[in-house]
Amino acid sequence: MNDEFYMDFALKLAQVSDGQTSPNPTVGAVVVKDGEIIGFGSHLKAGFPHAEINALKMAGDRAEGSTIYVTLEPCSHHGKTPPCANALIESRVHRVVIGSMDPNPLVAGKGIGLLRDAGIEVKTGVLKEKADELNKAFFHFIQHKKPFVTLKQAITLDGKIAAEAGKDQKITGKEVQEDVHLDRERHDAILVGIGTVLSDNPLLTNRYGKTKKQPIRIILDTHLKITPDKKVITDTKSKTWIFTGSDVEKDRITNFTQSHVEIIQLSNSSIEIDEVLAILGKRQVSKLYVEGGKTINASFLKSGYVNQLITYVAPKIIGGNSAVPMFGDLNVKEMPAAYGLTYQNVEVIGEDLKITSVLK
Amino acid sequence: MNDEFYMDFALKLAQVSDGQTSPNPTVGAVVVKDGEIIGFGSHLKAGFPHAEINALKMAGDRAEGSTIYVTLEPCSHHGKTPPCANALIESRVHRVVIGSMDPNPLVAGKGIGLLRDAGIEVKTGVLKEKADELNKAFFHFIQHKKPFVTLKQAITLDGKIAAEAGKDQKITGKEVQEDVHLDRERHDAILVGIGTVLSDNPLLTNRYGKTKKQPIRIILDTHLKITPDKKVITDTKSKTWIFTGSDVEKDRITNFTQSHVEIIQLSNSSIEIDEVLAILGKRQVSKLYVEGGKTINASFLKSGYVNQLITYVAPKIIGGNSAVPMFGDLNVKEMPAAYGLTYQNVEVIGEDLKITSVLK
Repeated sequence: MNDEFYMDFALKLAQVSDGQTSPNPTVGAVVVKDGEIIGFGSHLKAGFPHAEINALKMAGDRAEGSTIYVTLEPCSHHGKTPPCANALIESRVHRVVIGSMDPNPLVAGKGIGLLRDAGIEVKTGVLKEKADELNKAFFHFIQHKKPFVTLKQAITLDGKIAAEAGKDQKITGKEVQEDVHLDRERHDAILVGIGTVLSDNPLLTNRYGKTKKQPIRIILDTHLKITPDKKVITDTKSKTWIFTGSDVEKDRITNFTQSHVEIIQLSNSSIEIDEVLAILGKRQVSKLYVEGGKTINASFLKSGYVNQLITYVAPKIIGGNSAVPMFGDLNVKEMPAAYGLTYQNVEVIGEDLKITSVLK
Repeated sequence: MNDEFYMDFALKLAQVSDGQTSPNPTVGAVVVKDGEIIGFGSHLKAGFPHAEINALKMAGDRAEGSTIYVTLEPCSHHGKTPPCANALIESRVHRVVIGSMDPNPLVAGKGIGLLRDAGIEVKTGVLKEKADELNKAFFHFIQHKKPFVTLKQAITLDGKIAAEAGKDQKITGKEVQEDVHLDRERHDAILVGIGTVLSDNPLLTNRYGKTKKQPIRIILDTHLKITPDKKVITDTKSKTWIFTGSDVEKDRITNFTQSHVEIIQLSNSSIEIDEVLAILGKRQVSKLYVEGGKTINASFLKSGYVNQLITYVAPKIIGGNSAVPMFGDLNVKEMPAAYGLTYQNVEVIGEDLKITSVLK
């Protein structure tokens, strides 16, 4: 028996629903008996059956005495659906093979405990790294109660995001635009600064993704400079949440009466990334896609809350020091003080490069 | 018979001597008879036998009636060695399969003509693209009488080459250093500006390559600001050529008496890249590796003489606009006016990326 082989298949099943299960993780499950696959499934959407349940359903009565491979520890608690550990016990499976442990320290191991108490053989940690990677954003959200933050930029090879301030000109190609929209639909919310709204007036919707799923639009706007004619206000396809500082007068806030627009006033006169993320976490935003300009990029990097960078690098050179840089000032005075990254993945997207990295 | 198969092997043989045949091209040859390889060889060093001759030597008398695969059109002229076309005719080969044509328009097709006149069957253009790519620098040199120019930089992900002007701090890792020295030994000369010499005082030698081959050190120094204590003057492992403008007084030039140092005075008060490259071409420098700072990089890019860029991208971010950019001002005012590149290759080198691109 090759546990890795079946777990790998379960991981592929999990990947398929990446981006449509939020705030739940993506999970896959495969049921195997006498070397034959007798059932498989994945979790497709929050509120709908978990992966194990779908796989057991396919296996039917044959599940008795089988081995089930599941990419994430089966749950032990009653949520929107009954606990999967119980369902496995009732199905009389013989053995359970697990990829990731439950990320919630309060319940981690409980599902496994229930299974073992029922006399079921349990093996953990099979392809754990791949399984953990698949749900890294979900795990982060469960552990920190704040969204997993991806900073996305499009730059020239010499690190510029625009030739001149206030000029929104395409840097990267059509293929990158499509890739960005696919990433938008994998996230719960997109965040930009008021600078981007005023200069580019973006729609911030998913138009080239696989689905019609629209992430929430989040604008950081300390002094509520946004005007009602902006597309994020006039377009109703998605919600728009605008964060402002505490100094903005209440009557200016109540001016925005559109049902898809909400103004969220923070406790300080300036916007603290920490407070924004805590509020988003409470509102079940588990994955945040930051599409800001140099100021938002610098604020997020300095805040320490960036989990991942996606940098599209166009094969172009602008030169000099007067074009708009990818990050505003970070107060780095010498090379050893630079923010250190680790490259995770490099892909060619049309004529451009997509570099995914994490902070060291 | 699979012509591509044997040509591919001939190309592999040619690649082996990449960097050690200058000013000659790298060439490989394979002799095949009745589906059996009976000889192969490559050109190893200028003044030594060409690839065809080495391959025929291995085949001996069996060459009669054989097919020979050669990555470049056999020469028809007497150089340091007799013409290969004649040797092929004398060996009574039956068929010649060729990758690239001779890049010299004055002699292209002459070798083939000699072979056909002797009744030998000739097929051309087999794996031509790969064969042309292998000798692109040589072809450029033959056609333009100027070296093939590679611009090399090491930058942070946000396009900076230093956190502060005048501070030489490592950006990329040890593996990149080794890779750079391998590239140094593949070039005839390395070029930097006087700014780099004065601030970093580099040795500009090959210390981590495969051989002890030392490229010529070339310094662009309009006003002859270099001082005798600099390593490129005190170190005698390689030649140092210093280009100056026409305004520098003769007695200051004659001060430099070291036998490995030569001062080359240009015809204008400022240094024109065009004139420098023409002089280097006359001196048989066919491959030039430019390791300049932002000023040299910008001068070369603006001159239109850059054939290739090798950009090492470190996983680091400095931020802001005050650090040293990869290119000085290029007078690009909007995105569509940016210099356009085409990515040719992306490689992971240690923790860093190596991006090879050509100008559009």
